[in-house]
This record gives sequence, C-alpha cells and structure tokens, in this order.
Amino acid sequence: MQDNLSSFFEPQSVALIGASSNPSKLSYGILKNISQYGYRGGIYPINPKSNEILGFPCYSSILDVPEEVDLTVIILPAEIIPQVIDDCGKKGVKACIVISGGFKELGEDGKQREKELEISTRKYGIRIIGPNCVGNINVYSGLNTTFIKGMPVKGGIGFVSQSGAVCGGVVDHVVQEGIGFSHLISLGNEMDVNETDMISYLADDENTHVIACYVESIRDGARFMEVAKHVSKKKPIVLLKAGKSELGAKAVSSHTGSLAGSHTAYSTAFKQAGVIEVSSLRALLQTSMALDMQPLPQNKQAVIFTNAGGPAALLSDSLDEHGLKLANLNEKTQQMLKAKLNPAAQTMNPVDMLGGATQGEYAQAMRVVKENNDAGILLPVLVPQALVDPVAVARAIISETQNSQRTTIACMVGKQSTQEAKLLLHQQHIPLLDYPEDVGEVLGGMLRYKAYHDAPAETLEISRIAQKEEARSYFHGLADQKQFGEAETRPLLELYGVKNVEGKRADSLAEAQQAAKELGYPVVIKVISDEILHKSDAGGIRLDIKDERSLADAYQDMLTDVRSHAPEAVIKGVLVEKMQKQGEEVIVGMKWDANFGALLMFGMGGIYVEAFKDVSFRIAPVSEVDVRNMIAETAAGKILNGLRGIRYDIDAVVQTILALSQVCLDFPEIQELEINPLKVFSKGDGAAALDSRMIIK
Amino acid sequence: MQDNLSSFFEPQSVALIGASSNPSKLSYGILKNISQYGYRGGIYPINPKSNEILGFPCYSSILDVPEEVDLTVIILPAEIIPQVIDDCGKKGVKACIVISGGFKELGEDGKQREKELEISTRKYGIRIIGPNCVGNINVYSGLNTTFIKGMPVKGGIGFVSQSGAVCGGVVDHVVQEGIGFSHLISLGNEMDVNETDMISYLADDENTHVIACYVESIRDGARFMEVAKHVSKKKPIVLLKAGKSELGAKAVSSHTGSLAGSHTAYSTAFKQAGVIEVSSLRALLQTSMALDMQPLPQNKQAVIFTNAGGPAALLSDSLDEHGLKLANLNEKTQQMLKAKLNPAAQTMNPVDMLGGATQGEYAQAMRVVKENNDAGILLPVLVPQALVDPVAVARAIISETQNSQRTTIACMVGKQSTQEAKLLLHQQHIPLLDYPEDVGEVLGGMLRYKAYHDAPAETLEISRIAQKEEARSYFHGLADQKQFGEAETRPLLELYGVKNVEGKRADSLAEAQQAAKELGYPVVIKVISDEILHKSDAGGIRLDIKDERSLADAYQDMLTDVRSHAPEAVIKGVLVEKMQKQGEEVIVGMKWDANFGALLMFGMGGIYVEAFKDVSFRIAPVSEVDVRNMIAETAAGKILNGLRGIRYDIDAVVQTILALSQVCLDFPEIQELEINPLKVFSKGDGAAALDSRMIIK
Repeated sequence: MQDNLSSFFEPQSVALIGASSNPSKLSYGILKNISQYGYRGGIYPINPKSNEILGFPCYSSILDVPEEVDLTVIILPAEIIPQVIDDCGKKGVKACIVISGGFKELGEDGKQREKELEISTRKYGIRIIGPNCVGNINVYSGLNTTFIKGMPVKGGIGFVSQSGAVCGGVVDHVVQEGIGFSHLISLGNEMDVNETDMISYLADDENTHVIACYVESIRDGARFMEVAKHVSKKKPIVLLKAGKSELGAKAVSSHTGSLAGSHTAYSTAFKQAGVIEVSSLRALLQTSMALDMQPLPQNKQAVIFTNAGGPAALLSDSLDEHGLKLANLNEKTQQMLKAKLNPAAQTMNPVDMLGGATQGEYAQAMRVVKENNDAGILLPVLVPQALVDPVAVARAIISETQNSQRTTIACMVGKQSTQEAKLLLHQQHIPLLDYPEDVGEVLGGMLRYKAYHDAPAETLEISRIAQKEEARSYFHGLADQKQFGEAETRPLLELYGVKNVEGKRADSLAEAQQAAKELGYPVVIKVISDEILHKSDAGGIRLDIKDERSLADAYQDMLTDVRSHAPEAVIKGVLVEKMQKQGEEVIVGMKWDANFGALLMFGMGGIYVEAFKDVSFRIAPVSEVDVRNMIAETAAGKILNGLRGIRYDIDAVVQTILALSQVCLDFPEIQELEINPLKVFSKGDGAAALDSRMIIK
Repeated sequence: MQDNLSSFFEPQSVALIGASSNPSKLSYGILKNISQYGYRGGIYPINPKSNEILGFPCYSSILDVPEEVDLTVIILPAEIIPQVIDDCGKKGVKACIVISGGFKELGEDGKQREKELEISTRKYGIRIIGPNCVGNINVYSGLNTTFIKGMPVKGGIGFVSQSGAVCGGVVDHVVQEGIGFSHLISLGNEMDVNETDMISYLADDENTHVIACYVESIRDGARFMEVAKHVSKKKPIVLLKAGKSELGAKAVSSHTGSLAGSHTAYSTAFKQAGVIEVSSLRALLQTSMALDMQPLPQNKQAVIFTNAGGPAALLSDSLDEHGLKLANLNEKTQQMLKAKLNPAAQTMNPVDMLGGATQGEYAQAMRVVKENNDAGILLPVLVPQALVDPVAVARAIISETQNSQRTTIACMVGKQSTQEAKLLLHQQHIPLLDYPEDVGEVLGGMLRYKAYHDAPAETLEISRIAQKEEARSYFHGLADQKQFGEAETRPLLELYGVKNVEGKRADSLAEAQQAAKELGYPVVIKVISDEILHKSDAGGIRLDIKDERSLADAYQDMLTDVRSHAPEAVIKGVLVEKMQKQGEEVIVGMKWDANFGALLMFGMGGIYVEAFKDVSFRIAPVSEVDVRNMIAETAAGKILNGLRGIRYDIDAVVQTILALSQVCLDFPEIQELEINPLKVFSKGDGAAALDSRMIIK
C-alpha cells in the first residue's frame, strides 16, 4: 500500500484535469503552485478549450497525454468526475487528488455520488485523496497541488489535516516564521485514503520527523490505535481533535457529515497509543516545531535564564501546570554565576540576570549551568530592552545550545523587536515562543511522549482463567432481551473468574430462608426483575438481615415497596446474598464506543459516582500496567492504596478489570457491562461484585 | 489622594534627574521618549555636566530650574537618591518616578536604603512611583517617561504592571497591531504608590475604559478588595496573577522580595470583587481589548459565520469550555440564509458559507441573523482563501456590526494574509484574534464581568444572633495555648448560634454513664486532649454505644487505645455526645490568609475530604448569596440539594458558615477554625457540629 501512496507525493508526472487559463479560477492557482516551487516531473494541464496555460501545452483529455501519468489532480463539477476517473483508469493513472466538493458533505445525493466515485476508482485500483480537499504539498520535491498562497520552508513536520482550511491557515501562520515542514496533506472526505494511511506513510518518510494531525473524527479507531501505537515508538504524533465538546461535535458533524465519537474514547485512545494530544491549534504547531527542532528532554528539570522576573514567573507557573520542575542550582554553581553576572542578579533558578543582561551574560550563564547541572531543559527568556539586541542574544543562545543535548526552547516576549531573532533561531532549530505561558504544554507533551517512547513494550492481557466454551454457551443461551440484571450477569462474570458475592436465587420466602441458612446470617436480599435496573431506587434491596424472622419481615416489606414503586415490573424472584464485611466500594464498567470499541471504566463506586465523576478510562485490550495506571489516576485508587490508612486489595481489582476487558472482547454484542459496586476488601482478602448489569446491542 | 496622583500623569512640567547626552544610556532614551510623543509641558533635563541634551537646556540641579516642577523622573545611583529627593522637596515637586534599582529587591542593604528614601519623601509629602520601575506612559497627553521602544495608539486600556519588563513586552506586542491604550504604568517596588492606588486612579480617568493588571502580589488584600469591588461596578478590571503555582511563587519571590500569598485566596478575592482573572498574558491583552472595543454580551448565545468548518469546530469547543452557547437558528432564519448563500452552505449554527464565501455573503448572513435572532454575540471567522480578500471581509464585518449592540469578535486564522485586515478591524473597534481557541476565554470573562456588574449590591452579613460580650469574655478566658480541641471550641461556636451535637463533658466513667443517661442512648464518646487534634486517627472516638455496659467497655478500650497511639498526650476527660441520625457530613472551615484575611471553606466532609478536595472558598465578610453560591459550587452542595433523592437542610449550613465568618472577623487572633464534620440532616431538621477545633495565631 505504501508504494501505492507514494504516487501522491513523488509522481513522475502530474496532470491537472479542469485546468483553467482564467487567473481568477482556483485551478489556475493550482497549476501555478504545481509549477512554481521546483517540482521536476511532467506537468500536463487538461482542458479541451485551451492550447496552453502558464506555458504548459494543454490537452483535451488525459488520454491524449503522450507520457505516462502517475497522479491527476481533478477540479471539475462533481457530476462528471466518475467519467473522468474512467479515463484516468484507462490511462493507467495510479493516484488521484479530487479537489472538488459536491459529495458526501452535501447529504444524501452527494453520498450517492461519492459511492459512484468509489466504485469507478475501485475498478481501476486508483487511490484517491479527497474528494472535497485542498490538495497536498511535498515541501522537499516542490510538488504543491493546492491553491494555498505561500510555501513553508523545508523541515521535519508532516502535517495531516481533515480540514483543508486548517491546512491553509497553518501555512498562512508559518510562512513568515521559518517553521519547517515536509508535507502538508489535506484529506477531505476520506473516501479512500484516511488519516491512519497518512500517519503510516509519513512514519516511513525520511524527511518527516514529527507527524502533526488535525482530526475531526476517526472512523476505524481500532486500526488507528494499532498503527499509532507502532508509529509512536518511532516518531512522535502530535494531534489536535476538534469537536471535543458537544457544541464542537455539532459543528464538526454539520461539517463532515460523520458522527463524532465521544471525546472520552478519543483521548483515552490517544493516550494509550502514545499520541501527544494538544489543546489548541497553536499548541499543535508549537509542540510539533519543538519536537522537530529539539531532542527530547532527558529529564523534567528546567533552568530559566531571564532578563526579567515577571515573564519568568509566568513561565514557572506554566511549567508547574504541566508537571515540570525547576532544577536546583547548587551553591557552587550559584557562586560561579555570581562571578559572571551583575552582582545584583538572582542566581537561584530562575537565573534573573536583570534588565541590562547582554548576549555575553546569556552565554556565560548558560555555559555555567551546562557544565555544572544535569537539567535536561534550558529556557532562555528575553524581554526586549532598550540597550539589548535580540538578534545578538539569539546568536548567544544558538552557540551555547548547539550539540548540548539539552532541550532548548527560547521565549522572547514581544513582536516588533523579535521577528529577526525568531527567524534566526528557527533556522538554527531552536523554537522561539512569544508568550511564556505556552512553554509548559509543549514540554509536557514532549515528556509524555518520551515516557511512552522509552517504556518497554507491554503484553496485552489475554485472560488465562476464562472458561470460554462455557461462557459462549451460557451467553448464547440468554433470553432474547436487551437488558439483564444481576441474576443473569453474575454467571457470565463468574466464568471469567470474577468473584461475585456469595448468593442464591430464591422464588419464595421459604426458599429465601433456606438460602440464608446455607449462606449464614447476616444476609442481603435483592429483587430480581428485568424492568428494574436500579434496585435501590425502586426499594428492591434490604441490607444486614440478622435472622430468620427479620428476613420474613424484610421480604414482605421489600416486595410491597417494589410493587408501589414499579407496579408494572414482573418480579422473577429474589437474590439472597451474604452481607459483606467492611470494604471500599468501586465501580468497574465497560461501554462500547462506536469508533474505538470496548471503553473500560474504573472509579469511586456507590452513592458518590455521579457527584464526583472520579473515573478513569482505557480501551480494551489492555496490559496489566495499563490497568494499574488506570486505577492510580483516580481518587478511588489513592484510597485503595492506603490514603486513609488501610490498604485494599488492588490486585483483585486489576484482575476484575482484566476479566471485564476479556468478556467484552469475546462478546462484542455487549453494549454495556457494569459492576457497581465492586466491594474491595483489605489487601489479600480479594473483592466481590455486589451488583452487576449488562445491556446487549 | 487622587489629585496628588494626577501629577504623575498630567504634570505641567517634568524634570529628568540624571539625564545623559550619551545615546547608549537609558536616560537618553527616556528624554527622547518624553519629548517625542507630543507632551506639551516643560521638559528639564538635570545634569551638572551638560549644557543641553536633545535641544533642551540642561540644569545642574532641580533647584536651578526657573519654572515650577510637578514631576521628576530620577535615574541615578541609588545611594544619592535620598539627597536628590531632598532637593525635590525644597523645589516643591509633587510626584517622583524613581527608575533606578538598588533598593528592596537587593535584600537587607537595599531594604534599608528604601526605608531612607521613604522617610525623605514622607517629609515633603512627595508621592513616589518605584523605585526599580520603567516609568509610565500617558498615551493621550504623550508623556512617556519610559525607555521602551514604540508607543501604542490611543485607546481605552489602562495597564498597571508590577513588572516593568511585562510593560515593555506588552508594548512590543501591540504597537504594530493597533490595540489602543490610555496609560501604561510600571509600579516597581511599590514603596508608596501601589496597584490599588492605580486601579482607583484609573477608575476615574475618563480615557480608561478597562483596567488591565499584571500582579505578582497584593500586600493589602482587604483594601484591594474594597476598592476593586467598587471599581468593578463602574469599569472592568482584568487581572493576571503570576506566581500561581509553587514554582511560580518561588520565581516571584526571588524577584520582588515579597511573600506571595496562596493562590486560592487570590482567586477567591478576585471572584468576589468582580475582577476578571485571566490565565495568561495573551488572554490579559485579548480580554482587555475586547472589553475596550465591544459592548458586553447581552446573553451567552453566539452565532458563528465561517468559510471553513475546522476552525468553527475549534471555536465551538472553546465556547463550550467557557460556558457559552451556540444560538439556535430557526427554520425561517435558515431559509433566509439558504436564499442568500451558496446552496451547499450549512445554515445551522455554525453558519458555514464554504471556502469561496465572499464579503457579500458575510454581510448578508450577518444581516439575516441580526434581524431574526437575539443572539448577543456574533463571531465571524475567516480562513484566508485564494479568491477571498480578507480586507474586504473585514469591511463587511465592520459595516454589519456597527451600532448593532451585539458583541463581535472576529477570528482570522492566519498571519501573512490577515495583518492589514487586523489593523483595519482594530481601528474600527472590532477585536481580531488569530486562533479560534482563544475566543472562549475572552467571552467567558466578559460574561462573568457582566454577571457581577448587573447583580444587585448585596449586604454583607453581620450576625444578629451572636452573643458578642459573652463570646469576648469566653475567648479571652481561654488558656494560653495555640491549639484547642472540640471541648474548648464548642462553647465559642455556640455563642454564635452554631448548634453542636448534644453532649457533656465527663472526667470519669461514672460521670460518662450519668451523662449518657441524661442524653439518652445511643451515644458517642471522644477523648479530650490538647495534644490530640485528629481524634479518630489516635483511636480517640467510639461510636454508636447502645447501653451502659457497652459504654464501660468502650470507655476503657478507647483510653487504652489513645495511650498506645499518643503516650505523651495528657487526657483531660471525655466528651459524651448523642449519636446522630443519618445525614450528610460536610466540612466548614476558616484559614487566615496573610494577604486577604479570613478565608472560609466549605466542602464534602468526613473521610473523603483529602481524596476529593471537593471544596470552595470565600473571603469574609460574605453575603448570604455568596455563601449559597459557595455551597452550590461543590459536589457536596449538589448532594445536599437532592442529587441522591434526599434534600438536606442547606439553610442550616448557610447559617453555620455565616456564624463562622462572624467569629473570625470578631477574633482575628484565630488562625484556623474548623467544623469537621458538620452533620446536615433532612430539610427542616437542621445541622449539628460533630467535631471542631481551633488554632490561635
């Protein structure tokens, strides 16, 4: 497939079908862009009404072109494109970029038209980018099939975008800033080639050091995760997801016509796949630039060199927010700094060299710190001052950080006085940010990536204790209904090794009393009814029943209560369970996500679930390390781990989550599965599912 | 005081003491700035070694100036400044800006020097800005006493900064962007004039519509709150606080030598005083610009007009994050839009007019929405496209929003193609942001301000039920120690109307049994010991004791337990209390903040306090509305309000917090006071303090 895709970016020749000689037409702009940035292959405008455009001989049809054509760029009314594709097929074209809109994004008619387009391309095995895109730019070969004004300089950022406009906006932002790119790829409707294909392609592209993505939806989440996990071990993927909120999702869906999944599943997937998710378009550019230009930080210790206290304070806040530290400069280092700097300078970190600090002082201070401290991150900060030349300071920063193996990000708080310094720094691969508050997110992203990159590969868990055959026959023997309560869910969980609270089903008071006798008092009773999913809200639970007589009272009382709360509910019986000793109640659940599959959840259980929303997520399959991290992320996890003095049996929770993961992978028919509460006992004493329920798709 | 301060900004004449004829000196730059931006008063450089500088006759001493001098700007070695101040005093100078550093910021010696400076200025009643500042700019009069390069255009932002460098950085950012200012004021060490004085001054300055502040610490928090509350009713204060995190606070404190308070107290104070706290320097500029240029939003409904879906999705995410909504466009409005726009355009909100959208389409779409929808906010978004002129679109936006009374913020995603449009929009008072993600924070700040501005003035509560005389004599009769447990804290709370759990003190088992008999079983017993503040951790509590015999067992058991946990603790007795019925446990507390005074806290109580940190804060004194909001902000408040089906007695919690507030205002000697837990019963049944403690300063 890779070879196939290379025709988009390294074609021997390209034809523009729908070329125009009218400079006010987009297709004129495209031909100009194809021809003006050094692309060396054949260029063939196709238009039956022109003889030549921009000096290139024009052909009536792709079939008339004397040479072979690898790539066509099509900008024509949507209706006639399937016919044109047919010609391309006959000509042996390998790849085709369809700029034109008028397809899926317009609704039903357009969808139909896109279907036809798909059929005609399949017939010839032609790969398609688009339709409804703005084209691609290969900065290294100079092939620019867009109508975007300007061309970024060469660099290592490969940019993949589900919005053509965002591509254009990015170019408009960076062309004067010297931020270098390898590719800019607009994907349009993703009829054929999608974001995952492009990530995979850029992973093998030697000019690309960082893959930057703007994404609105990912349709094949499982494949995305598989590819991204693999690619992230090799080079970083930085990603901005639009449509995170309900409002944003609405904006996306009216835009692309595709249903955006919940953001929880997306951000969980990104984290698990080592993808650096960023919060803004600005952070997407800044983080990608830093990853392209600089080595990964060797540690989270940073040193700030500044000529002003205020911006250093803002920068420190930003570092703190993203988990970075200020390195401790020891007495000796501080003495050496004092000797080189203004006597009034602050030699703690931030190193504040005061307003008059010269390029020489920046160089001296950075040198002293490099030689005496292991901090992985150097952060020179400058506020333009009357007597200091930002370009000279930029030169000092460049010479002190070259080959230093320290991650360097410069910050100059200004605009009119700092543009020349910025260009110079960017040319020398040192990122310059205009505002100190932006630095933390960039470094935080780099550190998260480094942690993923350096972590040993983990084995995804396949449960060894599941009795799969029995589970299969039990599951397929379930009644034909969508919702199942505890009585039906328990046996399935049990077959995967989940310990349920000891209990028995009873159809009468006598049976219940018999069951209680066998289990031993105190017991709990719960109503069994398909219509009642939240038993406690319907009065369908009685706790801590101490003897036979209390059981009789509780039994009658509960049934009366349930009948008044839910008169239409069919009561199938009661569960008699052993009353459990003291423990912490947690929730373990799974919700099927349309894009990514089984989304596992863990958190504080019981009555506080809704109030605190103390939950964390992972997408199955998971490794044991994943699950332990998932637990540790929550307050519930901290409580289990001894926050209140008692250490609970976290291992039992881990096993329960792994079991749930396996159930959901084995039975993708399950839409939701929840154990709430799972009662966790002291370390070594295990855990027991006190209640569970399940919804089938 | 106001009149006094006006000499800094509207002097009839200004002398620069320490003027230099050497263009590489800062003082040369200052004289140039004083003279080049249209200031019309007298200008007198003072330097015994020069005859004239920049065409101005030079004087040996301020005493030689033939005219009266209102303002002097001093840039001289720190040591000789007190002497110079003496001359200024003799000359009758009213105000003095001391640019020079070498004072408090250098440590002990400098502090001493600053003290001397203060004494000499007090003697003559001279007001001082600085020392260690970069001077001020009055954009309207043209008086610029800084050495900053460039001068912003005239506008309504009055900028006050505790960092001179931040002032310089801001100017460097805005001079080419047409963002208008009234004043830029660098405060330096705030020996005399501080941020609160300047807020108060700018509140009455007719050229200033918005007060923007960069702040590192506020020393007199109470006065700041009083002034800011008042000013915020008149014009908005936008504020960025540096040193929010521990790292940042360290950076600030090594910088200004002042101790930064905890950020919780700061952000609580800002919220209560109507101050719009922002998260970054960029947001400070953007929010101030929007407040200066645009009317406040009439509601939180926004309509997006865009030529690209991606940026509209990012913008929608940003709106959602800050509590804004996308207005619903009704069928009729959508029909009218369809008639005016490209048939493929999306007429839902965001209104996506597609890539080719012209200025005419922007104008038409905005007009239709203005005439058919009440949304208070209009958000035109443009991504530069090959065939669309950003300046023409800017003109359309200007003509459609003038006199519209809708808050308009434009967003153009780019840089190279959008600068001219930006300048034009800013000249016409429409803010243009480069990135869609920035819009939400700006509008969110405007809406928060509007809510404060429009809210009726509230009466701060003075408790009517406190028995102040009795409280005073009780409090002053307390033993001479720092920490007090429940036994000593209960009576004080009671005198302020707080209901404690019913209980009695006992010194022996027999007394305890007698007390329990009177209270009625079941009871709780708790140890009384000054050395034990966390009774449950020390084994000093026994719950739910049902009869006399159990009490005997529990009594012995508890004392044995306490003695093994805290062998050195002196046990003064036990408290016997009535066991309380079911209720929710919350925490109500107060911690004295060095800058702002009594910081009240409310949140989830009991064992989950530490795990969830579900707490909210207010600074005393508070209104009843403040307290109700404070409760509503937490998950605990939602639970009390019926989240789990039961509504609890919130009124009783409100009264308890008001009482606590009053105790702390009446006894500023109290460092900490905490009721944990306060057990809240069902609506109408009140609340009871189950435990309390107190620390005296």
